[in-house]
Amino acid sequence: MSSAEIGKTVVDLRQIAGLSAADRRHLGELLDTANGAELLTTIDDDLAARVLKAIPVPAGAGLLNELDAPQAAEILRRLGDSRRDSLLGAMAIDRAQVLRTVLSWPEDSVAAHMQPDVLTLAPTATVGEAVDQIRAHAADRPHDPTGAYVYVVGSDKALLGAVRLRSLVLTAADRPVAELLDAVVTVAPLTDVEEAAMTLIDHKLDELPVVDAEGRLLGVLTEDDAVEIAEEEATEDAERQGGSEPLEVPYLRASPWLLWRKRIVWLLVLFAAEAYTGTVLRAFEEEMEAVVALAFFIPLLIGTGGNTGTQITTTLVRAMGTGQIRFRDVPAIVTKELSTGALIAIAMAAAAMVRAWTLGVGPAVTLTVCLTVAAIVMWASLVSSVLPLVLKKVKVDPAVVSAPMIATIVDGTGLMIYFWIAHLTLPQLAGL
Amino acid sequence: MSSAEIGKTVVDLRQIAGLSAADRRHLGELLDTANGAELLTTIDDDLAARVLKAIPVPAGAGLLNELDAPQAAEILRRLGDSRRDSLLGAMAIDRAQVLRTVLSWPEDSVAAHMQPDVLTLAPTATVGEAVDQIRAHAADRPHDPTGAYVYVVGSDKALLGAVRLRSLVLTAADRPVAELLDAVVTVAPLTDVEEAAMTLIDHKLDELPVVDAEGRLLGVLTEDDAVEIAEEEATEDAERQGGSEPLEVPYLRASPWLLWRKRIVWLLVLFAAEAYTGTVLRAFEEEMEAVVALAFFIPLLIGTGGNTGTQITTTLVRAMGTGQIRFRDVPAIVTKELSTGALIAIAMAAAAMVRAWTLGVGPAVTLTVCLTVAAIVMWASLVSSVLPLVLKKVKVDPAVVSAPMIATIVDGTGLMIYFWIAHLTLPQLAGL
Repeated sequence: MSSAEIGKTVVDLRQIAGLSAADRRHLGELLDTANGAELLTTIDDDLAARVLKAIPVPAGAGLLNELDAPQAAEILRRLGDSRRDSLLGAMAIDRAQVLRTVLSWPEDSVAAHMQPDVLTLAPTATVGEAVDQIRAHAADRPHDPTGAYVYVVGSDKALLGAVRLRSLVLTAADRPVAELLDAVVTVAPLTDVEEAAMTLIDHKLDELPVVDAEGRLLGVLTEDDAVEIAEEEATEDAERQGGSEPLEVPYLRASPWLLWRKRIVWLLVLFAAEAYTGTVLRAFEEEMEAVVALAFFIPLLIGTGGNTGTQITTTLVRAMGTGQIRFRDVPAIVTKELSTGALIAIAMAAAAMVRAWTLGVGPAVTLTVCLTVAAIVMWASLVSSVLPLVLKKVKVDPAVVSAPMIATIVDGTGLMIYFWIAHLTLPQLAGL
Repeated sequence: MSSAEIGKTVVDLRQIAGLSAADRRHLGELLDTANGAELLTTIDDDLAARVLKAIPVPAGAGLLNELDAPQAAEILRRLGDSRRDSLLGAMAIDRAQVLRTVLSWPEDSVAAHMQPDVLTLAPTATVGEAVDQIRAHAADRPHDPTGAYVYVVGSDKALLGAVRLRSLVLTAADRPVAELLDAVVTVAPLTDVEEAAMTLIDHKLDELPVVDAEGRLLGVLTEDDAVEIAEEEATEDAERQGGSEPLEVPYLRASPWLLWRKRIVWLLVLFAAEAYTGTVLRAFEEEMEAVVALAFFIPLLIGTGGNTGTQITTTLVRAMGTGQIRFRDVPAIVTKELSTGALIAIAMAAAAMVRAWTLGVGPAVTLTVCLTVAAIVMWASLVSSVLPLVLKKVKVDPAVVSAPMIATIVDGTGLMIYFWIAHLTLPQLAGL
C-alpha cells in the first residue's frame, strides 16, 4: 500500500519526509501522471498530502488533475495554505474554481465532500439527447467518473429528480427523460457529513444530491465516499470506546508521541476520577482492619460491575451509531436492562457464593459478597443504560462512554455499596 | 421502521407472533405485492422472516418474487425447512432454482450472498447488441436490479472481463464490447463473506464477481450488500469488544432472556478468571494487615492497568478489522506500544505521586505506588499489544479481546506486581 515501484526505483513513501531535494525532484519525475494518480488513490489522503508536499508544484498539480474532485479536495485540505494556493494556481482555472468551492465549505459538512461537477439536463430532453450530453460531459472530464445518475433541473435550476444511467440504457432514444424521473432523497449542504453518509447507506442509494435552500443542485455525495466516511467514523467511535482520542492517521504511521498525546488525557481524567476509590477505602479503613477478608473481594466485585456496564454501553453506543435507538427509547431501554440485570444478578450472586465458600471466609462475609454483587450489577445496569443516551441528548458523542469510563464510575460507587452492605450484615462492624 | 400502515390498519410488526390466524390472513391480504415487498426491504431480514411465517404461503411467495435474490435468500435462510420448502414450491421454477443454488452455499461464504442471475455477453457482441440483450434481460426480471456491469465470457464460459453500463452509454452502437473490457478483481465462492465485502470496499468496486476454479462466473456481490455485511460485522465486533456475544437481532427486539444468554457466558468466564485476585490478596493478607494503606490503591492501580490495555487492544482490533495491520507487524507494534507505554508510565507515575501524597500515606508507600503504576502500565502495554495478533494468528476472532478481558488479565497480575514491589520497598514487610 505505501511503497511505489516505478521503473527500478522502490520508494517507501513513509520515508518521504527524509528525502533530499534532488530525490524529491526525481520522485516527481518518476510519478508520471498516470501511475502517480493511481498511486495517490491507493494510499491514504494524509500520506498523499505528504507526497504532494515533497514533489515540485507542477507535477503535483498534474497529479491532482487526475483525481476526482472530492479526493483532490481532501488532499488539498491537508496541505498548508501556501502549498495549497500554489497547487491550485498551477491547475486549469475551471478545475481550480470547482475545488475552491468544495474547500470553502466547513470540513464536517457534506458539501465539503461532494462531487461538485454534476451533469444536469432539462426535463424536455430526450433519452438520445441525454446520451449525447453525457458523452460530451465525459469527453471534457476524462478523469471524473460519470455518476450513476444524471439530474434533471427546471428553468429555475431547482432539482426535479434524477434519471438512472441504466434507465437510459433500457429506454428508446426518442422518449423524454421526464418519463424516467426518479424522486430523490436530498440533503442540505451544511448537513453533518457522517449523518449524510448514514442516510445514503441506510437508504441503499448510489448517490445523495446536495441542494441549497432554493432546491438547486450543488453536487452529489457518492456511495464510495459515503462508505469511506462511515468506516472512518466507525474507527473513531471504536477508539473513543477504548478510552482514547481518535488517532486520525493509520495506526502504523502513528508515532509513540502521537499515541501518547491521544491516550494520556483520558488516562489522567480516569485516574483522577478513580482516585476517589482511595478516599472511600481510607474511610472504611477500620472495617477492613476488623474484617480483612473484605479486601479479598474488592477487585472481583468492582470488576464484575465494570464488565456488566461495559456490555451494556458498548451495545447501546453501537445501536445509536447505526440509528437503531433514540432518546425516546430510554424508558424501554432502562426497563429491558434492569430486567436483564436482575437475571444476571441472580446468576452472579450464585457464582459469588461458590467463590466465597472456596476462599473459606465464613457465612457472614459470603452473604455480604453475594448481596453486593447483585446490587452492583443492578447499579451498573442502571448507570450504563441511561448515560449514553443522556450524553447524546446533550450533544456529547456517546462513544466517549468507554469501557474504562464505566469501570471507573462503577468502581468507587460499587465500593460504597459494598461497605454499606457489610455494615448491615457483619456483626463485627456493628459498633463502627 | 417496524410498523406498517396499509389502508387504515396500523400493524406493529414486532407484535406479529401474537396475531390470531384470522388477523394473519388479513395481514397477508393487506400486504399486496407492491407495498409488501417495499416493506420487507425496509425492515430487517429477521423480522421479514417472521412476517413470512405469519402470512399464507402464496402471499409470501408473491412477496419474495419481488425482492432481489440475495435478500430473498437471506430471509428464506431464517425460516424453518418446511416453511422454506413450501415457499420455494409456490414460486416460479426458474426463480426457485436460482434461490436454491444460493441457499446451498455455506452461510459464511460469499456465494451465499451473491446475486446469481447475471447477464453475460460474448466478446464479439457490439455495444448495440449488448444494449438489446440488457433490455431483454431486464424485461424478464422486472424486480431484479440491473447491475453496474455486464460481464463478458468466452466460449468455455470463463470470465474475460466486465463492461461498465456507463461505458455502453458513452460508446457508439457499432463498436464491439471487447474494446470496453475492464479487468476485474474476482473471488472464489467459498471466500469468507466478510473478507469479500472488505475487498469490495477497499478497492472501491461497484460489484465483485464470484468465479469457480475454472474461472466461470457464478454471480456477483453487490456494493449495497457488501456495505450491509461490513456494517453487521462492525456491530458484531463492537459487541465482542464490549465483552458479550453478538446479539444478531436489532437491540430493541432483543428480549431480556436473549440479552442474558448473550452476556452471562462472558461474565461468568471473566468472574472465574478474576476470582484468582481473591487468592492473590489472601496470599498477601499479612502484608495488608501490616500496611493497610496498601489496600487503598488497589482499585486505582489495577484500573489504570486495565485502561491502558483497553486503549491499545481497541485500536489494534479495529486496525485489524480494517486490514491495516497483520501478524508480520508484531515487532513494529510491540516496539511502538512499549515506547508509548514508557511515556505514559512516566506521566502516570507523576500522577500517582500526587495522589499518594494527598492521601498522606508516607514516602515508602508513595514510592511503592509510583513504581507499581509504571510497571503495570508497561506490563499492560506488552500483554495487550501481543494478545490480539496472536489470537488472530491461531484463528480466534481478535475482537474477543474485550476491555473486560484485558482488565481481568491485568487485575490479578497487576496485584502480584504491586505486592512484589511492596516487598522490595517497604521496611515493614521485610520480615514477611
